[in-house]
Amino acid sequence: MAPLMVINMTVKRTENTKESIVDLGKDVLGQLKKVQNPNISLPVRALSNIKFDEKNKLIILGDKMSQRTYMNIAHTRKFMQTLMVAAECKKLLSETENTTTSIRDLYYILKRTIPGTTENTFEEQSESDPIIEDLEAALSTLRENLHLHADQKGSLVGPIVIEEPKFGSETDCMKLGASGFGIPSICEPDTVKLKSTTADFVLVVEKDAVWQRLNEDRFWKNHNCIVITGKGQPDRGTRRMINRLNAELKLPVYVLTDADVWGYYIYSVIKQGSINLSFVSDRLGTPEARFIGLTTQDVVKFDIPKNVTIKLNEGDKKRAAEMLNYRWFRPKEWHHEINHMLKVGHKLELEALSAKNIRFITEKYLPEKIKKKDFLP
Amino acid sequence: MAPLMVINMTVKRTENTKESIVDLGKDVLGQLKKVQNPNISLPVRALSNIKFDEKNKLIILGDKMSQRTYMNIAHTRKFMQTLMVAAECKKLLSETENTTTSIRDLYYILKRTIPGTTENTFEEQSESDPIIEDLEAALSTLRENLHLHADQKGSLVGPIVIEEPKFGSETDCMKLGASGFGIPSICEPDTVKLKSTTADFVLVVEKDAVWQRLNEDRFWKNHNCIVITGKGQPDRGTRRMINRLNAELKLPVYVLTDADVWGYYIYSVIKQGSINLSFVSDRLGTPEARFIGLTTQDVVKFDIPKNVTIKLNEGDKKRAAEMLNYRWFRPKEWHHEINHMLKVGHKLELEALSAKNIRFITEKYLPEKIKKKDFLP
Repeated sequence: MAPLMVINMTVKRTENTKESIVDLGKDVLGQLKKVQNPNISLPVRALSNIKFDEKNKLIILGDKMSQRTYMNIAHTRKFMQTLMVAAECKKLLSETENTTTSIRDLYYILKRTIPGTTENTFEEQSESDPIIEDLEAALSTLRENLHLHADQKGSLVGPIVIEEPKFGSETDCMKLGASGFGIPSICEPDTVKLKSTTADFVLVVEKDAVWQRLNEDRFWKNHNCIVITGKGQPDRGTRRMINRLNAELKLPVYVLTDADVWGYYIYSVIKQGSINLSFVSDRLGTPEARFIGLTTQDVVKFDIPKNVTIKLNEGDKKRAAEMLNYRWFRPKEWHHEINHMLKVGHKLELEALSAKNIRFITEKYLPEKIKKKDFLP
Repeated sequence: MAPLMVINMTVKRTENTKESIVDLGKDVLGQLKKVQNPNISLPVRALSNIKFDEKNKLIILGDKMSQRTYMNIAHTRKFMQTLMVAAECKKLLSETENTTTSIRDLYYILKRTIPGTTENTFEEQSESDPIIEDLEAALSTLRENLHLHADQKGSLVGPIVIEEPKFGSETDCMKLGASGFGIPSICEPDTVKLKSTTADFVLVVEKDAVWQRLNEDRFWKNHNCIVITGKGQPDRGTRRMINRLNAELKLPVYVLTDADVWGYYIYSVIKQGSINLSFVSDRLGTPEARFIGLTTQDVVKFDIPKNVTIKLNEGDKKRAAEMLNYRWFRPKEWHHEINHMLKVGHKLELEALSAKNIRFITEKYLPEKIKKKDFLP
């Protein structure tokens, strides 16, 4: 990918999502009354309309717009679907303040056979999910404000108190058991309040098994930190939590992943957002995040046995070459690491540290990295 | 599959897992001292050695044994792996009482290149996982007692207080937020204590999105029950929790899945255990569980729109035909349902109920099924 155009980010969002949906409906109705071809403006959510905001260090959506019109055979179906999703979200927002539904439920609610035809409104959930994202981008709102959620995924533990007024709950995340606090899919300030913390930093780990080891070893207590896992690529709720811990509570964020292209990609999504969800990077991205490890350079640095490294396959090599071209992997430290990986020809997973001994990660690796501030940018 | 041999179940387990490992080691050592070919006896964990215990209504392991010997070129590698896993588990059990590790970690700990060769002890985690199960079965113990865990998966909410002494935590599962209580992967009485409950029954739902709807609608409060999800096929921790809620607290268990062969299979695994883990069916199975729905017969019964049903594919039809032959789907009500599915040629997912309206499942479907005791056995 060529270097991206540089712009400043000013993301303004609607204050009243329901009103915006009503306005969208009125607009379409107005066009119909004037016997015009009904038309909805949508931001282009594609590589061609992505920018890297140098000031805020986030991947953001540009200002190219596309038109979705009813009287265009290539658009008609999506036009109908967009209005159906909008209408259902308005209904959700009207029912009671506290009603949310899952994006899978929404698909089922809206799936029906169009009377007098054999055609269905939606065939697969993969048809309705992007329409939801279209609507978010078009209305300058968030899925959460449309009262939609996905499955819960991430967990955290550590010195923080979290309140969920809707459920009348207040959770002291130092008093939890093996599973910690499940980070809700909707993690906005009105439903999930970060009441107080005494933590010094946030450690995000890619893998649940490592998170469990850190929880069992009371790493969060000994190092006074909040430990989070997204269980692989973090979902939106977990990324929003990381963003808020950094933005609201001013906590430094360190990310720990496998030393492979997938781990580095997870870090980059946590840090500067993703291409697909570029319109919410300001909410989901955490530009101040730092990469604590693993790196392929750690193998020598920490004397990790060679036999737990994994040989790169062709996919790894191809992806690594791509990443060298990404604007957000341009810092020389990242070029050095990715080139080093390609040179030595191997990757390694976090669990590889267990080959040293079972508590090596909590007693040696992490404390040393944090003490020396041995981070990648 | 032909009807299975009927026997009575008497599963005896070792009281001291560490001692059993030491005995296994001493046994092998004794054989070596006598210059015998070292040999370990293992139960055969295959379809040929599975029985359906008619008295206890569980799938259980028979008494066929196989020998894993060192001086047999087909066994040597697995023999070595078995002793390596046993030795590492003994180390885990010796370190401190509270040390557990993940089955993925164990793989990494044990993976190494055998000196003087280019051969690795283990190549993939899929090599070490079955060895762990072999060892469990051979020692008549449980993975949990070997201090091994997998990733945490299931959630519950409702009127129950759960204590985890190891973490110094006590959780009132009525005071939780959107994510509920994450059921630990190790859910044994010494680490997860079911302190008290006022619930009338347990509702197990296949899907997280449905569980979230039930939590949001306070279904557990209005119907005084514990609501659990395994997020698909429940893991061992969740199945053990269901088993214990039934066995220890005498709570009836109702299971809610999609109306498809996968949903019915999930129910059967919760109820009578699985072939692969037949040696722990007494711990993981809940023979008293009842199937609350969905069924393909519900489409007419609850006037569910036809267009949210999904056409059966060839895989569905083949699997349904197989299930008709399983001993544990022999009750006439199940034959009737499976044949009905094949006749109407469609399946449906839980979210299909949302097509009626968003709260249909909590306000109409479940209350009516429970009131009428409209269950499959």
